[in-house]
Order: sequence, then structure tokens, then C-alpha cells
Amino acid sequence: MKKPTVNSSRSTNPKGKKTLRVIPLGGLDGIGKNMTVFEYGDDMLIVDAGLMFPDDDHPGIDLILPDYSYVVENRHKLRGIVVTHGHEDHTGALPYLLKDLGQNVPIIATKLTLGLIRGKLEEHGLKNVTYHEVKDGMHANRGVFGLDFVAVNHSIPDAMGVLIRTPVGNVLHTGDFKFDQTPIDGRLTDFAALAKFGKQGIMLLLSDSTNATHPDITRSEAVVGQALRPIIARAEGTVIVASFSSHIHRLQQVCDAAVAAGRKVVVTGRSMLQNTKIARDLGYLKVDEKNIVDAYDMKNLRADEVVVLCTGSQGEPLSALARMAAGEHRTIHIGAGDTVILSATPVPGNEKAVSTVVNRLLKIGAQVYDKSSAEVHVSGHASAEELKLMLNLTHPEYFMPVHGETRHLIAHKHLAQQVGIPEDYIFVLENGDVLEFDEQGARIAEPVQNGVIYVDGLNVGDADNVVLRDRQHMSQDGIITLVLSINRRSGKVVGTPEIVARGVTFPEGRNIEKELLERATKTLERSAREHTSLGSMRKSVRDSASQLVWEATKQRPMVIPVVIEA
Amino acid sequence: MKKPTVNSSRSTNPKGKKTLRVIPLGGLDGIGKNMTVFEYGDDMLIVDAGLMFPDDDHPGIDLILPDYSYVVENRHKLRGIVVTHGHEDHTGALPYLLKDLGQNVPIIATKLTLGLIRGKLEEHGLKNVTYHEVKDGMHANRGVFGLDFVAVNHSIPDAMGVLIRTPVGNVLHTGDFKFDQTPIDGRLTDFAALAKFGKQGIMLLLSDSTNATHPDITRSEAVVGQALRPIIARAEGTVIVASFSSHIHRLQQVCDAAVAAGRKVVVTGRSMLQNTKIARDLGYLKVDEKNIVDAYDMKNLRADEVVVLCTGSQGEPLSALARMAAGEHRTIHIGAGDTVILSATPVPGNEKAVSTVVNRLLKIGAQVYDKSSAEVHVSGHASAEELKLMLNLTHPEYFMPVHGETRHLIAHKHLAQQVGIPEDYIFVLENGDVLEFDEQGARIAEPVQNGVIYVDGLNVGDADNVVLRDRQHMSQDGIITLVLSINRRSGKVVGTPEIVARGVTFPEGRNIEKELLERATKTLERSAREHTSLGSMRKSVRDSASQLVWEATKQRPMVIPVVIEA
Repeated sequence: MKKPTVNSSRSTNPKGKKTLRVIPLGGLDGIGKNMTVFEYGDDMLIVDAGLMFPDDDHPGIDLILPDYSYVVENRHKLRGIVVTHGHEDHTGALPYLLKDLGQNVPIIATKLTLGLIRGKLEEHGLKNVTYHEVKDGMHANRGVFGLDFVAVNHSIPDAMGVLIRTPVGNVLHTGDFKFDQTPIDGRLTDFAALAKFGKQGIMLLLSDSTNATHPDITRSEAVVGQALRPIIARAEGTVIVASFSSHIHRLQQVCDAAVAAGRKVVVTGRSMLQNTKIARDLGYLKVDEKNIVDAYDMKNLRADEVVVLCTGSQGEPLSALARMAAGEHRTIHIGAGDTVILSATPVPGNEKAVSTVVNRLLKIGAQVYDKSSAEVHVSGHASAEELKLMLNLTHPEYFMPVHGETRHLIAHKHLAQQVGIPEDYIFVLENGDVLEFDEQGARIAEPVQNGVIYVDGLNVGDADNVVLRDRQHMSQDGIITLVLSINRRSGKVVGTPEIVARGVTFPEGRNIEKELLERATKTLERSAREHTSLGSMRKSVRDSASQLVWEATKQRPMVIPVVIEA
Repeated sequence: MKKPTVNSSRSTNPKGKKTLRVIPLGGLDGIGKNMTVFEYGDDMLIVDAGLMFPDDDHPGIDLILPDYSYVVENRHKLRGIVVTHGHEDHTGALPYLLKDLGQNVPIIATKLTLGLIRGKLEEHGLKNVTYHEVKDGMHANRGVFGLDFVAVNHSIPDAMGVLIRTPVGNVLHTGDFKFDQTPIDGRLTDFAALAKFGKQGIMLLLSDSTNATHPDITRSEAVVGQALRPIIARAEGTVIVASFSSHIHRLQQVCDAAVAAGRKVVVTGRSMLQNTKIARDLGYLKVDEKNIVDAYDMKNLRADEVVVLCTGSQGEPLSALARMAAGEHRTIHIGAGDTVILSATPVPGNEKAVSTVVNRLLKIGAQVYDKSSAEVHVSGHASAEELKLMLNLTHPEYFMPVHGETRHLIAHKHLAQQVGIPEDYIFVLENGDVLEFDEQGARIAEPVQNGVIYVDGLNVGDADNVVLRDRQHMSQDGIITLVLSINRRSGKVVGTPEIVARGVTFPEGRNIEKELLERATKTLERSAREHTSLGSMRKSVRDSASQLVWEATKQRPMVIPVVIEA
């Protein structure tokens, strides 16, 4: 393969020359909030616009989005948003992005993906949206870009990769994928198309790194059905299966196993109800109406006539499964002799929550199956050997691993080196980095604005770092509010000072509250004599109170001094 | 084997009869804070007194101890505390327990275990302690109890199990163990002693359940050395190994591999320095003085002449490794070409913290080895086949799985059933449950006081659930303090009301603070007309403010109303 000159030093975009700019805005600092921008002259295309769910470092934050300011600033160029599949880490930023764009941009995706997106956008009150339905094997043109869609296997039906034809060269974005030789719906990852594109020449490959640290091959979704069937067939009580509500193939296999065992299926949990409805309406989930029973009608059936499909495989405290395990579900009761199948794997960070639910279920006397005891889950992402197969099928000149933390991206880089891609041709980037291509080759240009947007309740972008730091501080050491009124003329504290402590522990046998009020009064009166500004008085009250608390308790609660002029 | 009548219904201790009471106070609700009480007539013995490190559900809590009130109330009976090995989940409650007991109780343990305990107790100012050093194979008498100590393999040297001979029958507590056929120090788990005790008759076995869900056998510590040696021998830059500081065998293998590769060992991190000193002083860690170098003298050596031994294998943000990864370590710098070995596995809950450190190290350009890429760690706990071997060697009449969450205890129960122990003879208990034995058999009696003690800063036991709930609330939604002065006679708010918000986000384009103060003023004045008590006025201010914030932001910050009578 002929290799162009590589210039991978950081340099700015040479003026006046048209280049292809590839800008990952999310997905390179963790699994989630995937978003990549492709820009050529006056045309811009986005692939995916996802969100990430926050972890314990983000108390009170509901969602995290990629900072898409660059897209909003250049919205006049935007020709379309390709969405590779219907998972929230690829679709979840859409409602926020569309509102901020304030203009109609076609969303280009397959039928099921669009169905799931439409549901979300309508919840956000977005009605005037252009949905551009495509199928794998189809071609579409958006501005300067020619798009070819390729079927891929993933843990949701109708997933695809996309070949983007640009004046500088072809770019293939795999989306999330695996090579499943026995997919539930018979729709294989399209080897032939990938090989054909490889022959035509792929300048740049962006490929899914999620499982790059896993050796060998990810097992077929079909093995899960083989594991589920005997468990459900032999179960004596109710069977409860928790899974991701978007994993339609998994749900299909659960329904098939239930029907084969002569059981009815009960669906519960908000997103499970919503997604099964969309998938059945669009023909992706096939269950006869007579085999679906409402949770309220379960009382007419024996325990061993039912399989419950529910959410909660991640141990989420408010999910259907967690409420059942705690005996707090309105209609479904789990007892001794019932069987619970966790048909999912805990996302990193959720291990403890899942353990808590499992422990509760075991205490009740339920049989619990999870990945450790039966093959009731397989991943939807390609492992090392499949990633090498993708590289060999497409043999790109340049390679950019995407979707992962640094350790996944670097593991993927090593796989690419193993199949012969020179290190200089592999770009492990960070969000906001710009990779430019022209006839001279590839180079890294100045990064664009990047980072994250926090969504907190109804607010987008307002929970800044100060708010997060305050919350973390209070969650560690609590807060003390001191309220004092001062007469500026006399320089004396008047009335009764008040103290309110929350989340603070004081040692027994010592009245720290009283000491604090005395110290604050003295400090404030001294400060009133010395200073003129309220700010200085507040600061001196805070400092002296913090010091006393630290000496007495070795804790550093947040101290809020309120000084009122009487 | 003849089986006595089992009566496992909950009943009270029959008066006047002497029974053996076995009371697990900790270790049955998770991995950690192990503690078991054995009581017969006027004699009481404790095996282990450990702590647990808190997780994200316990913001600001430093340590968690088992509630040992029952021991303190019955301290006049206490004849000794047997400590099976020197890990903190078996020793960490000792300083607090000894202070609360306020009397001298012999601590019975092996030399290294006592050395580690002595260090901790002296830090707590406990000087007047009776250390009773024992060795495996020895016998000792404490009150009515006869004790036989058995060598076991674990991830710290000098670990033991203990056979407790009582008038009712013999009880074997395994402590933490595995069967390592090639232990680093040549000290095998004493099969012969276990078999002999089995022949003599064991009434009750308490056995380590930590790895009961792991199939097969835990690999030998020796395989870690085989993995470490070539990595260290081939490394080109500095090699940094992070491990648990108490894992002396692991440290020995690192030191041996370093010396074999012609490198010096640098020890860094407070607990690593402390534990290697104790272990070398007592003869458990053998490294020639000339092969140990102070971190400050590293500058005189080439990068490839050094192996650094440090803490931080759990991603702890303040640990030596985390500081090195962030470029903030005083003396040790990690750069491209250096090698980092994580010779440990993340404790559940620490996975994300460890990932963060690994990602940082990879970004710097370091080579990182962990359990996923090389056999640089093995567990110290027996897996399923070893647990069955323990059960078969000792063939107890009764069995109580200990050390684990419910899922581990129940998995261990199933193993015991597989080797022929009837279900009625297996007791999966909760902390504080009491298992009583007499000639009639075993029965579960009324539980004793149980639960946990939180240690927060310098305070023990003061961080109650209200404080924890407050902290969690504030960490989710922040806090708003409203300060208003009211003239009770006129019923009017006087002066300027104040609002302080922390950790709260307000939507743009709306002055919620102003609205809140106006609403609070109105509410307070109305309330002042209607009510007489300050409490009712405060409540009405809080309720109206909470409602406004909820309507405007869909958040529920904690609202603290401060009402001052002017």
C-alpha cells in the first residue's frame, strides 16, 4: 500500500487550502457521549450525538454531554447527523443539540434507531424534526459527502457503520460493532461491503475500542438463548429477567424461551414498556399478543406461568428489579423458589449496586443467575481478534481508535500495529483534537473548544465546577451556617446568634455549637472595630470558626457566615 | 457420622444450662470488619476485631467498625482476643475496642501479626497492652477454652486458623486461607493438623467465603514471581510496582526479581515504608541492606537501575502511585518508557479509581501491566475446590460460612451441601445472630445488639444515619439558607433578608434568589400573624421556598430557614 508523507506535528490549518477535518468531540475519554464531526470546506457532518451517565464524582448531575459549541458556532455548514444505532451513548445528546442549533437538521438513521430517537425527541417537545430513514446498502449524499451505510452486529438491532466519501479520501466509521456469525435476526455484519470498501481504498478508519483489551472473540448472542432456555424451562416459580430495555435481540430470546416453556411474558419498568412497544410496532420484536400479559393481570396466573421482563440489571435503586428485591414493587412479588436472571453485566462503577440487589434476592431465597454462573450475557462489542479482522478487511492508511478510555484506545492501537499499520499512521487523540487530511497527508491541527456539558434537573450547562466542588465538600464534611446581627455603630453583636449544622458530627462532652457562637461573636466584634467591609467581617468569622472546628473534630465542614447589619 | 437432633427454630437461651454461644458481630454483610465472639458460661473469647473501609454510600466516613457493644457489656468475661493475621479487616477495630474495654485483654497472635498490631496500637497511644505471641502447632488455654493454632496460607505471612476446644465440642475457625502448594516461605497450610482435628471431631467449622463464587483453585503466589521476573528483567526504564503493603510475600518476590535484574529497590508510601520496616526487623522480608535505596538517593542511579515499591494499587487519590501518575510526587517521576506493574486487583468499588490512574500512566507513555495483561496478582483466598477440600479434611457436623456478602455465604453453603453436609446443619447467619450449642444440638437464639460504628475524623460512633442522610442530600441537590429577621410586634420582616445557596444551580434568565426572598418574606409575615411558635414560622418558610425551587428547577436542595426575632 502506498503511504503518503506523514506530518503528524501539531500545526495550524494552512490557509486557503481545502482539507478534511475530523474532530472527535466525545468518546475518547471513556465509554459514552460519542460524537464525531467531519468538516470539508463549507460542509459539516456529524456521526452520533450521545450522552454519558455520571458517576459518583458528579453528585446530583443527571447527564453529561460532549461540549458541542464548535458545532453550534458552525451550524450554517451542518448537512446532517448520522446516528449509527439507538443506544443513548450515541443518541442522548440529540434533544439538547437540536434545541441549541435552533434549525432543522436531517437525522439520518435506520428505522428502529429513528423510532427510538423520535420517542425521546417528542418527550422533549421537539416535533418539527426531519427524519431521514436509510438502510444498510443504501447510498446518500449530504453536501460534499457521499454516504454508504453498512450493516453491523451490535446489542441492538439495525446498527450500522458508515463510509463517508470525501474529496480527500474515504473514511469508515464502524459505529459499535461485533462480528456475530449467528445473529438472532440473521443480519450479519456486512463483510462483503467492508471488503469492497477496503479494495476501493479507505484513507481513515475509526473503530470501536470498547473491548480492545479483551482477547479472542466476543461470543454470539445466540449462546445466551441456549443458556436461558433450560433455566426458564426448569424453573419452578416465577422467572424474572432483568436486561437493558434496548437489547431487543435479548428480549426476543427471553420471549421465545418463555413461550417455549408455556409461560406468558409480563413487561414492567418504564423504559422496558416503551422500548418493547416501539420494537413491536416496528416489527423488530416478535411476540404474539396472546403471550403478553399486563402486570396487573398476573394475579390470574400461577407463578410458574410467568416470565417477567424488567429493567434494573445495573442495580439502579429506583428500577423495577430493585423495588422487587426490596419488596416494594406494586404488582410483582419475588419469593423463595422464584428465579432471577441478570441478563447483563454491570457497567464499571455499578458493581456494588448490583451486588446489593443480588444479596437481597438471595436473602429472600430466590435463585439468582448472572454472568458468573451461566452464559446469560454476552457483550455487543468486538474483542481483539474481531478488531484485527476489521482492520484487515478494510486495510486503512490511517487509523483512529474511538469509543474508550485511554487504556482501550492504546490497546486498540497495539492491535493495529500487530496487523501492520505503522505507529505514525495511528492517532490516539483527545476530545476536541483536530485531525486534518489533504494531499500532503495527515496532521494534527489546533484543537477546537471541548469538554463536557452537565445536565442537572432542567438545567443544561449550569452545574459548573464550583457547584460540583461545593457538593462534594458538603457530602464529605457537612456545612455549618452562622448567623449574627451586628450594630455597626456600637460594634456589638445584638440579638441571639444562630448556628445551623447539617452533616456535621461533634464530639460528645463538649458543646462545640456554643463555643462556635462565642468565638464568632468575639471575632465579629473585633473585626467590626478594625474593618469596614461586611466581606472582611464575614471572612474573619468564617476563618475563626473553621479553625475551631478543625481543632475540635479534625473535620473541615463548609462554614457559611451570615452577618446582618441591625 | 452421628448427627444430633437439630433444632434450628429461633428460641431463647434455656436458663440455667451452660451452652456455647457463637456470635458473629461482623463479616457476614460484606468483605471486612471480621469479628466473632465465643461464649461459654463466664468465659468469652474473640476471634479477630477488624474494620471495613467505607464506600460512596458513606460520604465523609473514614472507617466502619462492627458494633461490639455486647463485648463491652460482658467485658468481665473476656479472656482474650485471637487475631488470625495482620490485615486491617481482622485487626483494625482493636484500638477502638481496647479503649472502650478500658481493661487489659491479652492479644493472642503470631509474631508478624503482633508486630503489625503493635505499630497501630502505639499510634493510638495504647502502650499498656499484653501481647501473647503464639506459633502454629502450639496450644494455649484461655478460661474454659483450649486453643490450637494451625498454619494457613494467605496473602500475608504468619496467618493461622484456630481450633477452639470447648466443653460442648470443638470449633475450627479457618481465618482467611488458601491452599498454596508452593508458598514463598515454604510454610504450607497444615493439612495434617486439619486432618487430625477432623478425626478428633469438629462440631462447628467457620470458613472463609471470600472466593466461594470462584470455581476451581486459586493459583499459587509463586506464579506471580514467574510473571514479574521477565517483565522486570526486560524493562528499559524505571520499574514501579504497586501492591498492598502488608503483602510481604509479594514484596519479597518483587525484591528478588529486582536484585536478579541488577536493580536496587526504592520503597515509598507511608504504609509501605512502615510495613517493610516491621517485616524486615522481624525477619519476614529478606533484602540485603545494600539493595535498598532511599527515594532521595534515586538521582544517583540510572532509571534502569531501580525498582520502586509503592502503595496505590487501589487508585487511592493521595497514594504514592496516584501522585506519580499526576506528576505530583516529590521524588519519583514516571515518564515514557517506564514500566508500571499493578500487582493487585481492584477491591469492588475501586475499579474506576484504578482505571483513572492507568489511563494517566498510559497517556504519559508508560507501559502498564495489570492482572488483565500478565499474571502479576493472585488472590489470597481459597476458591471453590479448596473450600470443599477444607470441608472434607475437617468434616464438621455443623458449618457456618463467614467472611462475605450473602452471595458468597450462600455459594459456600452450596459447596458444603455438595460434600454432604445436610442443609439443616448449615447456618447462614447475620451479624449479631447467636448460634447456641449444647448436648441437644444447635439452635439459633435471640440476636445481640449489632450493626456498625462509624469512625469520622476523631469521632467514633457519632456520624449517625441522620448526618449521613443530610450529607447525601446536600451532595445531590445542594443547600439553601434563608435568613430573615422578624419584628414579632409589628409582624413585619425588618432589615435585609439574606440567602446563601451552595451546590445549587438556578436557571438563567430568572432571578430565583430574589423570588425566594420575596416569597419567604410574604410567607413569614403571614405565618407571624397566624402562628406563635418560631418553629411553625420556620417550617412555613421552608415549605414555601422548597416548593418554589422545585417548580423552577425540578431540584430539591435542603432548605434551612433561619428566623431571627428582632
